[in-house]
Amino acid sequence: MSDSVVADERWSADRWQDIATPFLAVDLPTLRRNVARAQALCDDGGVRLRPHVKTHKIPEVARLQVDAGARGLTLATVGEAECFADVGFDDLFIAYPVLATPDVGTRVQRLLETADVILGVDSRDGVDALVRHGLATHPRLSVLVEVECGLRRTGVAPEEAGTLAAYAAEHGLTVGGVFTFPGQAYAVGAGKPAAEDEARALSRAAEAFTAVGLPCPVRSGGATPSYEATDTTVVTETRPGVYAFQDAQQVALGTAATSDVALAVVTTVVSTPAPDRLVLDAGSKVLAADRPAYVDGHGMLLGVPGARVDRIWEHHGVVDVSGVDPSDVPRTGDRVAVLPNHACTAINLADRVHVRDGDERGTWSVAARGMNG
Amino acid sequence: MSDSVVADERWSADRWQDIATPFLAVDLPTLRRNVARAQALCDDGGVRLRPHVKTHKIPEVARLQVDAGARGLTLATVGEAECFADVGFDDLFIAYPVLATPDVGTRVQRLLETADVILGVDSRDGVDALVRHGLATHPRLSVLVEVECGLRRTGVAPEEAGTLAAYAAEHGLTVGGVFTFPGQAYAVGAGKPAAEDEARALSRAAEAFTAVGLPCPVRSGGATPSYEATDTTVVTETRPGVYAFQDAQQVALGTAATSDVALAVVTTVVSTPAPDRLVLDAGSKVLAADRPAYVDGHGMLLGVPGARVDRIWEHHGVVDVSGVDPSDVPRTGDRVAVLPNHACTAINLADRVHVRDGDERGTWSVAARGMNG
Repeated sequence: MSDSVVADERWSADRWQDIATPFLAVDLPTLRRNVARAQALCDDGGVRLRPHVKTHKIPEVARLQVDAGARGLTLATVGEAECFADVGFDDLFIAYPVLATPDVGTRVQRLLETADVILGVDSRDGVDALVRHGLATHPRLSVLVEVECGLRRTGVAPEEAGTLAAYAAEHGLTVGGVFTFPGQAYAVGAGKPAAEDEARALSRAAEAFTAVGLPCPVRSGGATPSYEATDTTVVTETRPGVYAFQDAQQVALGTAATSDVALAVVTTVVSTPAPDRLVLDAGSKVLAADRPAYVDGHGMLLGVPGARVDRIWEHHGVVDVSGVDPSDVPRTGDRVAVLPNHACTAINLADRVHVRDGDERGTWSVAARGMNG
Repeated sequence: MSDSVVADERWSADRWQDIATPFLAVDLPTLRRNVARAQALCDDGGVRLRPHVKTHKIPEVARLQVDAGARGLTLATVGEAECFADVGFDDLFIAYPVLATPDVGTRVQRLLETADVILGVDSRDGVDALVRHGLATHPRLSVLVEVECGLRRTGVAPEEAGTLAAYAAEHGLTVGGVFTFPGQAYAVGAGKPAAEDEARALSRAAEAFTAVGLPCPVRSGGATPSYEATDTTVVTETRPGVYAFQDAQQVALGTAATSDVALAVVTTVVSTPAPDRLVLDAGSKVLAADRPAYVDGHGMLLGVPGARVDRIWEHHGVVDVSGVDPSDVPRTGDRVAVLPNHACTAINLADRVHVRDGDERGTWSVAARGMNG
């Protein structure tokens, strides 16, 4: 392979020999740098960093985040919480309107044997279910009321947060405060306005708590494209996830540079059937199918100026090379690196990632992969 | 839950109790019926059915297909082939331009100890790699030349098939014939034209074989939306995959009725934050993110007339219920069923599926999940 094929030497073929493609490669120095940088930003702003581990689902990465100063983890599901509790993490916020069905109630009870657990709640039904399963007064359990700040997903309106908090408190629950997810940050130029939406919603929610005579010490927000613009006069905690690895989405949003991305799919050119295209052995079952309007193609192919991962099937990535200088076009058998559009969904497809730190190489298991319930 | 919430009783909540949502449910009678119907169609047309197991990755389903009359399996990767060979399947066609790197060469050699293996090839590089690894003359190995029939993915032009076949034969390989994938069938009304493209390409390729003095006994095609229109005067083998389960894509294409779909995501309403929407605990990590232009939403929500799975995040499915009669709107805690858009990518996210056959319930492991290399 010519040097021009892989411009970023972190992903060059000779650094990842003897691993069958396609696979996910992690550059540990870049990951460490991303984690340290985010931690320093949060420390400087006096905001607690509680990283969302749904991005990586890998205990080794969570350990690295906590060792760098993160306080507690954010999780999407009870299954993820179980996975991280099993390996010793004991401060877990499931940032989701967890509905305590009998099964979920029993599992949360078990979690509480080894961890402090915070659950999201956005309805009286949610509160009632916790009460019904005898969880309300557990000393290690608390809830945060979810408010919505513009995404129109889960969460009550900020003005209603006090009423729901009061309802929960009356039923014996410890209410720590409020949280929101400013997912509207996922659009070009939207990070700062989303952070403003977040601050406004959390601030109004805190006022609504005051109106019912409740304190609101935790005001939690955050998403990777917005957390750097966090309003530290309002927000006490932030929960970005992707920041640890970064991905092609974040590059397109301007949140990260290509050199900040710590995760790549290493893939082989398996076919060069026509001058205008080549085909990679990575498709939607490796790269994932996420493709927001603001990204150009199904991931960012590195080192081939003018190329674009144009179309994907499950096991085929078709690269348009019609605009590429013929001497730069990879050949059958060459390995190239593609930065996936969305780290969270790409990692969730893999059972393990391959990790390189200087001359050392190893693997991490994606321990919480597929734990969706 | 009211009866109106789940109109299709196969997926009604009381049939799937005690399983934590979200999960994949399989209705075995429907699956068996789909398999039998496709087999009968192929038998009637005198076409060999070699089902693509990348759809399900489940040995139990492959066994059911073979027991119904399927002859051999189609696979996407060497990893899938290893998985199915391990449990005794011995007639395996990897319908992909397999590039015999040292690792792949060694693994194919091992496969050949227990199975007849057919590999796709679409380049001299592909032939050369097989020769280099001493596989060319193995008595249990043969190749099919891949030709393209309009998809502009892998495969040589049909007219070039003879030249490549001759090159392979000169180097000692057994060339069984040609194959193509008429993926352009994935558009409304495109099934029949795609089948015509397929027949034309396979026919021309066979002529190109004749021109170089080679027989072309295997002319293999097929995709679920096109295989029923197979030109049986040309095509000898078809390789649909999705037909076994069907999915919302196939319903949108008119290939299947809702009642033909044997696979559903059972999910819980976790939030009803506003009158115009509700939120399910199934998002892109369960339903997969595939959303071609011809489908309406991220999967088909059953039993709620006028509802649409409008937006998804990893663990949230937001359903627009603004056009739904209020008495039909599910409530927090209700379970509903969503037919995923694409069976192949949804199953690949799960470690297991739950299966129901009359009063009996069990699970199948998605044994080849994630085997992308």
